[in-house]
Amino acid sequence: MARKILIIGGVAGGASAAARLRRLSEDDQIIMFERGEHVSFSNCSLPYFLGGHISSSDKLVLMSPEKFLKQYNIIARTKNEVTAINRQDKIITIKDLNSGELYTESYDKLILSPGAKPIVPPIPGIEKINLFTVRNVTDINNLHNAIQDKSKKIAVIGGGFIGVEVAENLKEAGYDVSLIEAMPQILRTFDYDMVQILHKEILDHGINLLVNDKVAGFDTNTVLLGSGKKVAADIVIMAIGVSPETHLAKEAGLEIGKTGAIATSPMCQTNDPDIYAIGDAIEVDGKLFDDKWKLALAWPAQIQARGVADHINGQDFLNPGYIGSSCIKVFNLNAASTGLTEGFIQATKMDIDYETVIITPNDKVSLMPDNSTMFFKLIFDKNTRKVLGAQAIGKGNADKRIDVIATAIKFGATIDDLTEIELCYAPPYSSAKDVVNMAGYVAANIADKSFSQVSPNEVRNLVESGAYIVDVRETPELEKGKIIGSYHIPLSELRSRYQEIPKDRPVYLHCRSGQRSYNGALALQNLGYSNVVNVAGGFLGLSYYEYFNDKTLNRNPILTAYNFN
Amino acid sequence: MARKILIIGGVAGGASAAARLRRLSEDDQIIMFERGEHVSFSNCSLPYFLGGHISSSDKLVLMSPEKFLKQYNIIARTKNEVTAINRQDKIITIKDLNSGELYTESYDKLILSPGAKPIVPPIPGIEKINLFTVRNVTDINNLHNAIQDKSKKIAVIGGGFIGVEVAENLKEAGYDVSLIEAMPQILRTFDYDMVQILHKEILDHGINLLVNDKVAGFDTNTVLLGSGKKVAADIVIMAIGVSPETHLAKEAGLEIGKTGAIATSPMCQTNDPDIYAIGDAIEVDGKLFDDKWKLALAWPAQIQARGVADHINGQDFLNPGYIGSSCIKVFNLNAASTGLTEGFIQATKMDIDYETVIITPNDKVSLMPDNSTMFFKLIFDKNTRKVLGAQAIGKGNADKRIDVIATAIKFGATIDDLTEIELCYAPPYSSAKDVVNMAGYVAANIADKSFSQVSPNEVRNLVESGAYIVDVRETPELEKGKIIGSYHIPLSELRSRYQEIPKDRPVYLHCRSGQRSYNGALALQNLGYSNVVNVAGGFLGLSYYEYFNDKTLNRNPILTAYNFN
Repeated sequence: MARKILIIGGVAGGASAAARLRRLSEDDQIIMFERGEHVSFSNCSLPYFLGGHISSSDKLVLMSPEKFLKQYNIIARTKNEVTAINRQDKIITIKDLNSGELYTESYDKLILSPGAKPIVPPIPGIEKINLFTVRNVTDINNLHNAIQDKSKKIAVIGGGFIGVEVAENLKEAGYDVSLIEAMPQILRTFDYDMVQILHKEILDHGINLLVNDKVAGFDTNTVLLGSGKKVAADIVIMAIGVSPETHLAKEAGLEIGKTGAIATSPMCQTNDPDIYAIGDAIEVDGKLFDDKWKLALAWPAQIQARGVADHINGQDFLNPGYIGSSCIKVFNLNAASTGLTEGFIQATKMDIDYETVIITPNDKVSLMPDNSTMFFKLIFDKNTRKVLGAQAIGKGNADKRIDVIATAIKFGATIDDLTEIELCYAPPYSSAKDVVNMAGYVAANIADKSFSQVSPNEVRNLVESGAYIVDVRETPELEKGKIIGSYHIPLSELRSRYQEIPKDRPVYLHCRSGQRSYNGALALQNLGYSNVVNVAGGFLGLSYYEYFNDKTLNRNPILTAYNFN
Repeated sequence: MARKILIIGGVAGGASAAARLRRLSEDDQIIMFERGEHVSFSNCSLPYFLGGHISSSDKLVLMSPEKFLKQYNIIARTKNEVTAINRQDKIITIKDLNSGELYTESYDKLILSPGAKPIVPPIPGIEKINLFTVRNVTDINNLHNAIQDKSKKIAVIGGGFIGVEVAENLKEAGYDVSLIEAMPQILRTFDYDMVQILHKEILDHGINLLVNDKVAGFDTNTVLLGSGKKVAADIVIMAIGVSPETHLAKEAGLEIGKTGAIATSPMCQTNDPDIYAIGDAIEVDGKLFDDKWKLALAWPAQIQARGVADHINGQDFLNPGYIGSSCIKVFNLNAASTGLTEGFIQATKMDIDYETVIITPNDKVSLMPDNSTMFFKLIFDKNTRKVLGAQAIGKGNADKRIDVIATAIKFGATIDDLTEIELCYAPPYSSAKDVVNMAGYVAANIADKSFSQVSPNEVRNLVESGAYIVDVRETPELEKGKIIGSYHIPLSELRSRYQEIPKDRPVYLHCRSGQRSYNGALALQNLGYSNVVNVAGGFLGLSYYEYFNDKTLNRNPILTAYNFN
């Protein structure tokens, strides 16, 4: 029996649900309502139009209402805003924004896919600035038109995905760009230690990056920061976050969850079983923790869009728990993350006895001319040995390593499993023992207490407290900088000179990447040293970790120089 | 108690075992014997020296005997060939190739890591040519010295990894290169349908690729082929395959397996428990089939090297079954494969009821300027729905997709699991629904009989037998070529014109990539057509499939033109 299925919101989730509904039934009437000017545009690609990667904003629109009708017999009405849901009579009211007229449509099933809107707080003086947000094609066209003059100074407020991508693209397009973040770091899908690599990349490319500094107010063409700093800005782009579009749902008496997003059943039904909700507007289950969260990502929206279409057509669907995998290009670096971060575990006071590993191997065989360091952090449960999350940053294939970890997490992998994943290898792509395998080995060694390590973020305290740090790099390498106060015994002399190292106190070893110092640490242990600790990530990891904060916090350096090679 | 551990073979496996042995014990005496001039060189990187990616052959050598001694207290003796193993007295005899002197060393534990040697069959006239093989740094230096004159014509015999990598690198370096393969295809880690993409790439880059043509003999500067063709060759590189180095093991009475490689216990012990064997010289278990195989890859060698060092030091080790993951760069294409191929299943007459899926999606959001087609083939068990293998080829990140599949296979993933892997997404990297997710959906649809498909390799028969093929691309796309005899109804007109399509015979639908025709196929099914079949990979996949064989077999084309975009 033919049904009438209405969809509120015609972007990612809504459009995908409509297409899937049509594949499952030729008979159903499917109407999609979109308040904005376009359906089915690539919202994730909006920043790349600013950077010139996408030549015309028209290209951002993947499907027109005409195409939807012709190819899929789906009615898509743009500039049509749904203003009310009458659940009793199963009727919605729509305002045609072209004519201003109100009209109604009845439904058998209703799908809410309204998305989330940029948060714009009532900051004092906000009326004095030229303010933009980035949500749809209209927004990006408005912004693009406002910055035809390349001498415009632009301030992007908020260092999340959209803020960073917009800032990067505008900088690449030649603008004077400031990126302002209230927290001590951008991109909280990365931990504080890892994100320093991205902080440096952003600074190096000439963006005026300001972290740990909240916007206190605005004046004409000026952002006023809590620190007292003033940032000149002809254009201000507000990207501090998004908030689920819940007003229609609320007014219709649909249940809102504790996160402030729409609550749904495991089948994505609201508390009205004829009304489904999907995408950025709903809250979802965590897969790695026992709670709800908001996850404004495209992958969950796609899963849910397909799932509700299946469910409406009598097929099974269970909205799964999500781990949250993401990636971002930041100038020359690829950065990816999956699962839990240390920061998230701490912020949510999760009861997990976790441990972390940082390694800095080459992304491929070091002989290949385009090899580069892959910064990799693994987070695992010390008791169950289960992998909880990972972050990778480098010029090389970071997303590959994180996709492997995301896959492993799906199957409940332990750190030991990571050593056994048979990844493909040829010199242009990886090493015989890939980054992921290596992280597994290091994690297993730590879990087995074969050796111990400290994170780059603990080294400053060690130096300041006068810890015994041995630099096992070979002598020529010292020219590239060293830890102030460290003792130098090259690995090649360690066995003949180890007696110089005291046995009655902790000994911290480091080399360039942590690899040779690991060998040195085990040698010392086998030679009777009971308290030997490896500096994870080595001088390389430490250089990144110290650099940004040395620059921005004007603190005393603990390294005589940085070395980023 | 300190032991004396001898290692025969100082390249990948041997050198890794030595380093791990040292990490586990400072006391053991560790001596490594290498017949060649170098230990610890990157054998996988040898071809890249020919292409100029690696500036000097010295760089191929990762560790010198001096470094092994100084950094790890490991004795490495190059140009020292072990000539006999006396198991009774646990003594080996070594010939110092510098002095010609014989000497002996006793052992507590012995590790065989002799590798595999290039096969050079006694082809008539072989003495008349300038013959090279590629196994070690000395080989590659000899070859490099012989081709200083860039006008040299080079024939590479054998289209396996080494043959293809050497041919590619020599072509990139500017030589006239022929690549000769006796079988109908190169690189049997890829199926015949997929490998056509690589055949085309090799042809397009000016290599004289000859497949299905066996070397019958040689004459001066000439390779004589079975077809009667003659290939001019100042230099001939023999790369038809490798054979495990088993002579020492055989002479010592150690067991050789049915594959001709050394047989070992699950702990990599030979039938003499004090003698271990690892790497290319041994046979291993398949993980996806119940038999032994030879797998000359670096990853297994690394696993075994570490494993035997652990086992010698009282730790657990079980040499796992292997799935065989690999990748190769072929000019501008990245190609990767894991698990079973259709060809391997057929050749080994494996009793599996398998099905395949071919998809040709974009590797990333199609708006991004460097997007490209990712050719992806998935092989799965129709009954258990388990993933058996996959192949990916494209300009984009093929190795990433295959690493994800390799990880999934490790955990026994089904095709349904593939749809649920939460991969990271941003426009520069992938699509919201990644290639792997999409392959899972298509496979599940096929397994559930939601729709059916044919492979590109079945289309020629369809055309020749007058099957009813509907091209659902939009009209402007027809300019890029079409299937001869196909009927054209654009997807946008399908619902108004479907009555033109007969209901009483099978209907084959295709578009550019297989995506729109899938939607069209479901529409027809829902409109009452009971026998609708999608052409997997679409016109794009078909173009590659037909191109190479049309060119080389002089057959009648079934396409009016090819379209590779």
